[in-house]
Amino acid sequence: MPDTAPMPPNLAPVLAQIDSALPSALNRLLDLLRIPSISTDPAYASECHKAAEWLVNDLISLGFDAAVRPTQGHPMVVATGGNGGPHLLFYGHYDVQPVDPLDLWHRGPFDPAIEETAKGRVIRGRGSSDDKGQLMTFLEALRAWRAVHGTLPCRLTIFLEGEEESGSPSLIPFMQENAAELGADLALICDTGLFQSRSPAIVTMLRGLMGEEVTITGPNKDLHSGMYGGLAINPIRVLTRILAGLHDETGRVTLKGFYDGVGDLPEEIAAQWQALAFDHGAFLGDVGLSVPAGEQSATPLQMIWSRPTAEVNGIWGGYTGDGFKTVLPSKASAKVSFRLVGQQDPAAVREAFRAYVRAALPADCSAEFHAHGASPAGHMSVAHPAFEAARSALAEEWGLPAAYVGCGGSIPIAGYFKTYLGMDAMLVGFAKDDDAIHSPNEKYDVESFHKGIRSWARLLAKLV
Amino acid sequence: MPDTAPMPPNLAPVLAQIDSALPSALNRLLDLLRIPSISTDPAYASECHKAAEWLVNDLISLGFDAAVRPTQGHPMVVATGGNGGPHLLFYGHYDVQPVDPLDLWHRGPFDPAIEETAKGRVIRGRGSSDDKGQLMTFLEALRAWRAVHGTLPCRLTIFLEGEEESGSPSLIPFMQENAAELGADLALICDTGLFQSRSPAIVTMLRGLMGEEVTITGPNKDLHSGMYGGLAINPIRVLTRILAGLHDETGRVTLKGFYDGVGDLPEEIAAQWQALAFDHGAFLGDVGLSVPAGEQSATPLQMIWSRPTAEVNGIWGGYTGDGFKTVLPSKASAKVSFRLVGQQDPAAVREAFRAYVRAALPADCSAEFHAHGASPAGHMSVAHPAFEAARSALAEEWGLPAAYVGCGGSIPIAGYFKTYLGMDAMLVGFAKDDDAIHSPNEKYDVESFHKGIRSWARLLAKLV
Repeated sequence: MPDTAPMPPNLAPVLAQIDSALPSALNRLLDLLRIPSISTDPAYASECHKAAEWLVNDLISLGFDAAVRPTQGHPMVVATGGNGGPHLLFYGHYDVQPVDPLDLWHRGPFDPAIEETAKGRVIRGRGSSDDKGQLMTFLEALRAWRAVHGTLPCRLTIFLEGEEESGSPSLIPFMQENAAELGADLALICDTGLFQSRSPAIVTMLRGLMGEEVTITGPNKDLHSGMYGGLAINPIRVLTRILAGLHDETGRVTLKGFYDGVGDLPEEIAAQWQALAFDHGAFLGDVGLSVPAGEQSATPLQMIWSRPTAEVNGIWGGYTGDGFKTVLPSKASAKVSFRLVGQQDPAAVREAFRAYVRAALPADCSAEFHAHGASPAGHMSVAHPAFEAARSALAEEWGLPAAYVGCGGSIPIAGYFKTYLGMDAMLVGFAKDDDAIHSPNEKYDVESFHKGIRSWARLLAKLV
Repeated sequence: MPDTAPMPPNLAPVLAQIDSALPSALNRLLDLLRIPSISTDPAYASECHKAAEWLVNDLISLGFDAAVRPTQGHPMVVATGGNGGPHLLFYGHYDVQPVDPLDLWHRGPFDPAIEETAKGRVIRGRGSSDDKGQLMTFLEALRAWRAVHGTLPCRLTIFLEGEEESGSPSLIPFMQENAAELGADLALICDTGLFQSRSPAIVTMLRGLMGEEVTITGPNKDLHSGMYGGLAINPIRVLTRILAGLHDETGRVTLKGFYDGVGDLPEEIAAQWQALAFDHGAFLGDVGLSVPAGEQSATPLQMIWSRPTAEVNGIWGGYTGDGFKTVLPSKASAKVSFRLVGQQDPAAVREAFRAYVRAALPADCSAEFHAHGASPAGHMSVAHPAFEAARSALAEEWGLPAAYVGCGGSIPIAGYFKTYLGMDAMLVGFAKDDDAIHSPNEKYDVESFHKGIRSWARLLAKLV
């Protein structure tokens, strides 16, 4: 644990207030979790609106000037308040994933409750971790601050989205139209997790993502595999051969020029990651695996944080129902994605993939491609003084060093803040690996919620 | 065209009767086609029964002792009649395929009609070719014979099934329970086609079929491809590599011992097939292809008739809906089938496939297998004198030599007759490649129907 500064005098009563008010904070979160704000399903549009209104009312109670802001899709929540200090923007999202398969939930996904488990108390319900529980950590920290000090700690903009789980179609237009209003010194994003479910972490490196859908067509209609089998080309055979060729025997991606711009991990970051002592055995063991399956030359942490990938996310063709049908299908399809790092150019990788597929097509076969979006890797600047303040605050709260870590996933909002508002972002979150986000029985540890609130209070005390 | 015998005196009036009665024969077929006897859908069970009753009534009108015979599923129709000559069993099936997608039909599938087309008159409707139209060719030949001669031409058993399109679950038990009643000198099966839609053909070689379903499991649940991608093994990647390895660069199947028992094509058959002058360009061109995709050392006709295959009939895994989901799935599956020839042992091929998959599994992955049935290749004896009689009769009717041909598909009934009743079978049919059986807008050429009836009359005249 690093040396830590003495506690600032403005903080102790705030932490005490957070501790004593935890039961009411949990009740407020349960209220919010009862609103089924599933953004991807149009049937829940009014519930999304209701969640936005709930948050606006809560923000008004905290002294914000807050409003539900319409978009083409689900509304945004924008609130401004406070004075002095750094101008911070806080981002979270109030929409949640669908709940299927419902029969795997042991309680109603929108009937949340505090449950005692072998690993401690958890808040059970859809959105408890992703992202309602996480976003409420910041609002509860502000509530405690205000209860103690009578004001918000500094100038603040709260920006809450309702389409994060459905592709954020309104996000960029809204940011462009409201750039002046949304601009701040730094964005805080609370949608990430603890490292190894234990150590506080600030994500400074995000992989990019390029998605492609490819459909191989052979015969112009489905054929009987008895009549034609052996003579007619089978597009599933073509597709499997193409996909099998995406990796060589050492796990490297074979696309021409794929590694252009990947670069080596800076020594300083490599050293930090080494110090994290990532227990890949435990990480893989949790999901029934044991052996790192990526590039043989990479460490396990590099495989998920700093090395690019090629992954088949979906494949289909022919007859996939019960029983058997001796069809020789006309088409076979796959959804393929590439996680990108360093300076890899998503457009160049897309073209390399398409060129590879086209070159691998046998006679009579054609390929159609459908682009599914592309974002380059993200590298957060840690120049703003809030970063070192956050490391200290997090270490003090969690009793473990706070690391700058990578994230194998893509969180486009961080890049959008830079691109559209010229603003750096700091990603801090308190989720654990077993929170089951996007899955049945999603939960958020009461510890994550409680210490998360306290973490923000500690950070704010350092910044104001 | 081969030399043909002079027309027997008992035949000319029968052919004349067939020609003059064609309109009423067509009307009878249209009646039968109006009954939606879809066997795979339980909602149509009473319609299957209705079709069976229709046929029983028609057979009674021909002088048969006929009955609807219950089974656990849809009923059989069994009829006996006639005396003298060879004892022939005729097999057909009165059930039909489902009609989806209904919107691709240009008229109701069970609102049949005679249509004029650029290629001649056709009978349009579900079952017109497969198999109601084909089975009625035999019954209409008997009707004309009886109209002229007052009796059936020889001792006959008619055996019509109602579950051919749904896996024939009742067939073997019924044959076993009624073996004495169903035994005859030779079975005639009318469920095949003309060679190249033009030449009369008798199928003497059928490929066998072995079906397997394999599921590869990697992680014990679906994972986020950002969080785990690059470190966790993706079962789709494993499956595609396994399936891609089923063929070598020359198109040969790589399974160990796969070609045991395949053997070379007998010279006599090879010569017959050579004489058929198969136009593989036209055959492939009809389905949008041009290049034979099988073993480089085989001729196109061998590829579909006498060479074994490995074919992926279905594949699925991960996210296959609209849009994109960055899932790294737990499982990936495929349905794989092998067409078998010669003395290939289906059980041995199944074991070779499973051994190959198991040997190809990387660390942490497992494979589950599900067997989908197996039948060896079939080779029809042509020893019964009816075979050469049929070749002559068919050549005389169609004006082209009648060939002994192969069939790439599997028609298990032929093997069942041999196995359970000790009876050889002769497969003769008049379908054309463009009949669209199992597809929307199924049709049967009036020419197939008319000349089919005449073909049976010619054969019967030679046998009695």
